[in-house]
Amino acid sequence: MSWSVISTWKMSLEGNRKAGRILESHGTAGDAVLLGVQDVEDNPAFHSVGYSGLPDAGGHVTLDAGYMDGDTLEFGAVGCLEGYRSPAAIARSLIHYPYNNFLVGEGAAAYAENHGFEKRDNLTKDSAERYLRERNLNQTHSSYKGHDTVCFLARDEKGTIVSCTSTSGLYLKEHGRVGDTPLPGCGYYADSTIGAAAATGVGEEIMKGALSRAVVDLMAQGMHVQEAADKALADLKERLGENIRPISLIAMDKDGNTGVSTTLAFPFCVAKEGGDTELYLAEPSETGITSIRKIEDPSELSMD
Amino acid sequence: MSWSVISTWKMSLEGNRKAGRILESHGTAGDAVLLGVQDVEDNPAFHSVGYSGLPDAGGHVTLDAGYMDGDTLEFGAVGCLEGYRSPAAIARSLIHYPYNNFLVGEGAAAYAENHGFEKRDNLTKDSAERYLRERNLNQTHSSYKGHDTVCFLARDEKGTIVSCTSTSGLYLKEHGRVGDTPLPGCGYYADSTIGAAAATGVGEEIMKGALSRAVVDLMAQGMHVQEAADKALADLKERLGENIRPISLIAMDKDGNTGVSTTLAFPFCVAKEGGDTELYLAEPSETGITSIRKIEDPSELSMD
Repeated sequence: MSWSVISTWKMSLEGNRKAGRILESHGTAGDAVLLGVQDVEDNPAFHSVGYSGLPDAGGHVTLDAGYMDGDTLEFGAVGCLEGYRSPAAIARSLIHYPYNNFLVGEGAAAYAENHGFEKRDNLTKDSAERYLRERNLNQTHSSYKGHDTVCFLARDEKGTIVSCTSTSGLYLKEHGRVGDTPLPGCGYYADSTIGAAAATGVGEEIMKGALSRAVVDLMAQGMHVQEAADKALADLKERLGENIRPISLIAMDKDGNTGVSTTLAFPFCVAKEGGDTELYLAEPSETGITSIRKIEDPSELSMD
Repeated sequence: MSWSVISTWKMSLEGNRKAGRILESHGTAGDAVLLGVQDVEDNPAFHSVGYSGLPDAGGHVTLDAGYMDGDTLEFGAVGCLEGYRSPAAIARSLIHYPYNNFLVGEGAAAYAENHGFEKRDNLTKDSAERYLRERNLNQTHSSYKGHDTVCFLARDEKGTIVSCTSTSGLYLKEHGRVGDTPLPGCGYYADSTIGAAAATGVGEEIMKGALSRAVVDLMAQGMHVQEAADKALADLKERLGENIRPISLIAMDKDGNTGVSTTLAFPFCVAKEGGDTELYLAEPSETGITSIRKIEDPSELSMD
């Protein structure tokens, strides 16, 4: 069996390479996705995840993350967590408990403190300045900037599939707002016997469709991974109408084949056994089948 | 078209009657489910929902609730909310916003305060004493007591289907723990063109299957509501094995027909157009089809 890893946005390029190297060295899907997500969490250039994430309307950088092991369906998640380096690592650690797998706010921070997770003030000078500038411009949520969740799906050579997500959430969100990212079935899902999916975009729209579970359900019915991603998004589009807000989906079947669907131009990264990480651009097409092309030069894409 | 309402546990009997009267008087499904849930939230005899709910391991009564309108797929939800009378009412009010539909902790409380929702200290002498007694007995979560979420699904005469859920959550949960109850796709889902579902039991187990979405997906494939509820639960049982923890599901199709599936004896209430609320007991059976019988005398059932 062969390994495979897919991740959202150009910002995950280096993380995807790291995840690929873990998998190439016979590492686990769990270690691969966490390392991939952490590469983005730690990079202050990206203002939608982890360090230098944009603050909420109360000035707090609050982070959401989710992790699911497709062998056992065990998951861990944190929401509205402030002051820690890696919400994804904390989410992953929570899968080891029979209960209390999703913790939010002060309770999540207390758990992280008691378990010795690395602290970090994620509000940087840059993100604070951006927040003040944008707020003063009276920007609305309708801007898509900063909705960009990092999502990784990986399959290791043993066939285990894992999903992992991390975000600072909706642009200029209210304090206490939690999106799809830490919610099993909405922002991510993984079942090693079927496949996995994860979502980025407007969390409130993704949650209306419980979209990650919808993609996996379609694969369970025998649909090809690309077709399942396109159909799950098309079904929600049909239901919500033309005003559906931005959503992008990544998916993987149990054999490590990947699929993507999106309502707008969406860069993503894939590495597979025997190859290096490649950057792709997905775009919606009139046919309903997502158009995908390889980007040879990452600098060609202006977006993260 | 005819109205219908189904709700979880014997504790919802009076609330189901109230919901039925709303629907019989040509009221909306939204008003019906909220009134039904609030009847349970306000009753201090029930220690798993609202007033007199059991506190978490930090001594706080923190409440979770969700609400979904099946016409638009709009939802509202609160998690880990302390100090308010009706988390379900607050959840319902959140559906009117394009973003920030799921609020947790202090952010949820700030929203409730700013919007004038009724405050209430939900920790009663009775629930505080129970908490201390149970904690001293070193009870573990493995006890099923107090996992009982109230869930209502209703269809009104116009064909709108709404789901609403409310709970104080897992027995002796950690502070900050959020379960399936406020999560679309996990604790509840509603699509008036297909049907709805909601879940009670061990939230962490329900979330592994994103079970409410799974039931609705099966109905979307053309499965009968009872068959869909049984198959969604059977699929998760098969996946998790015989040690699956307690779960009970209620479901409704777009025409208002109801279905139930459960891993253990589970009382529920149904009212339909032209009839009064009836109490039923569902039990798992060897055939895989849930066995359901009407309970003529509610006092026959010792559980809530």
